[in-house]
Amino acid sequence: MADMLYLEDLAVGQVFSTQTKTVTEEEIKEFATQFDPQPFHLDDEHAKTTLFGGLAASGWHTAAMTMRLLVETGPQLAGGVIGGGGEINWPTPTRPGDVLHVDSEVLEIIPSRSRPDRGMIVLRSDTKNQHGEIRQSIKMKLVAKRRPSEMES
Amino acid sequence: MADMLYLEDLAVGQVFSTQTKTVTEEEIKEFATQFDPQPFHLDDEHAKTTLFGGLAASGWHTAAMTMRLLVETGPQLAGGVIGGGGEINWPTPTRPGDVLHVDSEVLEIIPSRSRPDRGMIVLRSDTKNQHGEIRQSIKMKLVAKRRPSEMES
Repeated sequence: MADMLYLEDLAVGQVFSTQTKTVTEEEIKEFATQFDPQPFHLDDEHAKTTLFGGLAASGWHTAAMTMRLLVETGPQLAGGVIGGGGEINWPTPTRPGDVLHVDSEVLEIIPSRSRPDRGMIVLRSDTKNQHGEIRQSIKMKLVAKRRPSEMES
Repeated sequence: MADMLYLEDLAVGQVFSTQTKTVTEEEIKEFATQFDPQPFHLDDEHAKTTLFGGLAASGWHTAAMTMRLLVETGPQLAGGVIGGGGEINWPTPTRPGDVLHVDSEVLEIIPSRSRPDRGMIVLRSDTKNQHGEIRQSIKMKLVAKRRPSEMES
């Protein structure tokens, strides 16, 4: 529990970077088959004729891979990474061969008035490839637990 | 192509409903194992001790299932369902046994000034279970192609 981050450990401007994840063509097609079966996510040749200009990962696949990176090597929030919602943007699509990592920054700290045991933070997380191209940018409200007091522990 | 919707076929206030998708515990755990390996998405007993109060699907899993419903039985946009981004909210988590469907409404029509062949629409899509509980609400900007003129076809 020593590495767990509580609300008291977080500050506006604090940054975090994850490790990397290489995206394969097979993974792009597998995710698309299951959740976003559109030709530009499944068929290289067809994808060239679309506005993507080549095989592109589903934005929701980029979101899912981003979540895995955040959970495993992003900010280790006490109680887990639990989001209520936020904004999501995909300025460019994830491509086969992309080596993704996620850079995050704490934008806001919001203590709860009604819940003494927790607050929320707003975290911006940019998912970038090996060339620094931003594949996804999210701003999410996440639960941040307060550190239990000595009395309670 | 008769069923394809072009920008000219869309209007503010237009609504669409998808078919349903039943969510199983196995699917929740499988998605979580791959993309969001946190105990409240993987372990029924542990989940009871968290703020979810029981096994809950990853929000990104709800998003991915929503996308599949939209692609297969949502508004059949010409050129596909291609989103640049938007807002996402998860008011309640998806649970095992949920029977999800997606209700969508066109909120805005945005013709492009620079691209004569397309515009954007803003579509709100609410993902609801069999009791009408909203599991996810998204507002997404989607590409809407203009109908090719007779001259071009």
